[in-house]
Amino acid sequence: MTSPAQALPAVLQKIDADLDRSLERLFDFLRIPSISTDPAYQNQCRTAAEYVAKDLSDIGFSTSIRPTAGHPIVVGKSGNREGPGKAPRVLFYGHYDVQPVDPLDLWETPPFEPRIATLADGRKIIVARGACDDKGQVMTFVEACRAFKAVTGQLPLPITMMIEGEEECGSNHLFGFVKDHADEFKLDLALVCDTSMWDGATPMVTTSLRGLVYEEVRLTCADRDLHSGLFGGAAQNPLRVLARILAAMHDDNGRVTIPGFYDGVKELPPDIKKDLAGLDLTPENFLAEVGLKVPAGEKDRSLIEQIATRPTAEINGMIGGYTGEGAKTVIPGQATAKVSFRLVGGQDPKKIREAFHAFVRARLPGDAKVEFRSFAGAPATEIAFDNPALTKTRAALAAEWGKKALAIGEGGSIPIVGDFKRVLGMDTILVGFALDDDRVHSPNEKYDLTSFHKGTRSWARILAALAG
Amino acid sequence: MTSPAQALPAVLQKIDADLDRSLERLFDFLRIPSISTDPAYQNQCRTAAEYVAKDLSDIGFSTSIRPTAGHPIVVGKSGNREGPGKAPRVLFYGHYDVQPVDPLDLWETPPFEPRIATLADGRKIIVARGACDDKGQVMTFVEACRAFKAVTGQLPLPITMMIEGEEECGSNHLFGFVKDHADEFKLDLALVCDTSMWDGATPMVTTSLRGLVYEEVRLTCADRDLHSGLFGGAAQNPLRVLARILAAMHDDNGRVTIPGFYDGVKELPPDIKKDLAGLDLTPENFLAEVGLKVPAGEKDRSLIEQIATRPTAEINGMIGGYTGEGAKTVIPGQATAKVSFRLVGGQDPKKIREAFHAFVRARLPGDAKVEFRSFAGAPATEIAFDNPALTKTRAALAAEWGKKALAIGEGGSIPIVGDFKRVLGMDTILVGFALDDDRVHSPNEKYDLTSFHKGTRSWARILAALAG
Repeated sequence: MTSPAQALPAVLQKIDADLDRSLERLFDFLRIPSISTDPAYQNQCRTAAEYVAKDLSDIGFSTSIRPTAGHPIVVGKSGNREGPGKAPRVLFYGHYDVQPVDPLDLWETPPFEPRIATLADGRKIIVARGACDDKGQVMTFVEACRAFKAVTGQLPLPITMMIEGEEECGSNHLFGFVKDHADEFKLDLALVCDTSMWDGATPMVTTSLRGLVYEEVRLTCADRDLHSGLFGGAAQNPLRVLARILAAMHDDNGRVTIPGFYDGVKELPPDIKKDLAGLDLTPENFLAEVGLKVPAGEKDRSLIEQIATRPTAEINGMIGGYTGEGAKTVIPGQATAKVSFRLVGGQDPKKIREAFHAFVRARLPGDAKVEFRSFAGAPATEIAFDNPALTKTRAALAAEWGKKALAIGEGGSIPIVGDFKRVLGMDTILVGFALDDDRVHSPNEKYDLTSFHKGTRSWARILAALAG
Repeated sequence: MTSPAQALPAVLQKIDADLDRSLERLFDFLRIPSISTDPAYQNQCRTAAEYVAKDLSDIGFSTSIRPTAGHPIVVGKSGNREGPGKAPRVLFYGHYDVQPVDPLDLWETPPFEPRIATLADGRKIIVARGACDDKGQVMTFVEACRAFKAVTGQLPLPITMMIEGEEECGSNHLFGFVKDHADEFKLDLALVCDTSMWDGATPMVTTSLRGLVYEEVRLTCADRDLHSGLFGGAAQNPLRVLARILAAMHDDNGRVTIPGFYDGVKELPPDIKKDLAGLDLTPENFLAEVGLKVPAGEKDRSLIEQIATRPTAEINGMIGGYTGEGAKTVIPGQATAKVSFRLVGGQDPKKIREAFHAFVRARLPGDAKVEFRSFAGAPATEIAFDNPALTKTRAALAAEWGKKALAIGEGGSIPIVGDFKRVLGMDTILVGFALDDDRVHSPNEKYDLTSFHKGTRSWARILAALAG
């Protein structure tokens, strides 16, 4: 029997030859509007889970659709006999759910009708909601598995797939599922494909992820909307109260003012800080592309620190009063905001949540009542720079892309990765092929065809390297 | 020929006898959803104008529907031969448009299906959007005219009716109309029925009205919504910027901080201030009814000052980012607020608007762009306490209600009243029969049957008094 490393050239050739059909499979997946955060799409989320389960079965995984109180989790198991005897057993995690599509009128074509387009610079792209996050990324791994199976008759190492449907709304039911089935998923290493490259030519392994706490805060003053002529001046205005509270969350230097917020935030070691300073990340090449030019975070921090290694507080949404066309002289009875925090280092989600609640309550004037709804809560996670699996992965990426793979922290959150470490005792290797201009979570989301194709090839190389 | 004063008892009797039919006419008017601020209701506004014109014609007015660039203005003229020779010629102003009905789900019955209901305390009420503001109030005057005409064959004095359709969206086209046709409308006195009583037993003439400036402010940062994981910390958040700016509009004592805002605001004379202090207006009887208890305005001002004689700044609406169900980790590209100012004394709407724009612009960080849309703008207005028409009106109201009629300032705005003085040189008598619990601008708007019936009788008495 040939080793995975020996089979690799044929596997890569198979991936190249199969590109068109792999795109057809991805497009079928993208056509399913699996918006997890909106209850109206519950059936479509189920359909997406069934699609994944069927596809994994076709490759040879023993597949099950595991129910939760929310959207189901797809589990696929290869068994432990795959690959050479001493290969690590890996858990691959991804998600089949996608973000909402609003504002829909900004999409050039319908979000769930995937298409190939060509950018002005000649890059071919796949356009659809989920093209990148996370359907396109998940399928790079699935297609690498399919190619190995087709060429060698087996996978290069034992693989368990865990594809969930609630990542975009906080992975609420995944945590309990992983905890309740820890024996089933306690393997040697976790792999995730939901992150990005440094740029279109430079592969990257993400060595830390920010955590997330997400809260909805609703203020109620009067028990109805009031005429601002009759009541203006005397009635408490919840929009005014909410604006004051949210404005107080940052000081003039962009630092978060919530007491205890920075507890557990560590300074980077000097050498890492120096590496970061050497990167060519500038407002021009990072912010200009989305119409911005001035880094808006803590004034004494570099841009890369602001987005990757420092915690943040953001207002993700706010609504109250009259928001239609024209003018209405109303004092609203209610105002609502969605507020989230990106966490780093040892920041404790529970303490951050409680500190935020206390911060709001301490600023409530008479006649303002508050209700909170809590969504996601997960701490930050990190992997050691000298982890052997990390070293192998970086080498495999370098071989595919012809360029050293960076090892760097990233600003986004993948809530479950923290639990892989805490509950299952596994480190996680985060490799992804997203690019900064992928419009993830925005209208006209895309994934470069190169990301999809070379991403699939990258996973084949990584699996071969880990197996060896 | 009998004088209007001699005819009055028969006119009042006619009003009583005709109550049921006058209600049927009001209900027909209320069934027309003439929401002026929403372009979707343009045809319904036209229908309401036609309804008013037809009704005035039936009474004997020479009626025309005068086009504007917005909703039309209904004009009805009695000619100058009505009543005794020396009676003043009066201009009655009202509006046929109504406020939007959202939130629709809080209405107990559909807003444009008027009905009579009975409150727990036995009061009979008319429930519908516009029941009070201003269809019900307008019809008290129209029904008084109808009764005079029916009993005496003519009106008690020359009356010109001006019923517009844009009061709820700023009366934008009325100003030019009045100016362009000043010769037509320059009469002796203006009458308006769009204000309230002091309480259900105490009639009131409103001797001053706050002015209004209404602005929409839209901030744009990134050219799209961004993923808060990728961009959080570096990208400017327009909701955060807007919250900071709007929070800065008031200091900790509730005083507006916009430079120059209080220019032209006069202190009340000590005797008037003393009268106000003697009124039984308390947080318990004014605010408790809408679920509040703490006056939220300037801390060093009494409640009656806060709502009637002091200027205000309010956030009437605000929206940005994700406001649907659940959690979405987005940094919005845009955020919008509607902000309005109630003006008193000599505050200049143009200067206030410019000061607000400058206040916002001075607080814009890098990457935040602002656009303004200007809606209503009108200064405050007032009538002298010794005006003879005011004295006659108060006496007529006292005769109907058996209680001295108060003369007092009110917090709402009726933009055109200022122009009646400035452009047409006329004082305006503001008499209305609204009550504080009428839910004006809110779901389940109502008008007491007593307000409608005794309001009609009040106008008959006032017209007779002014004619004499």
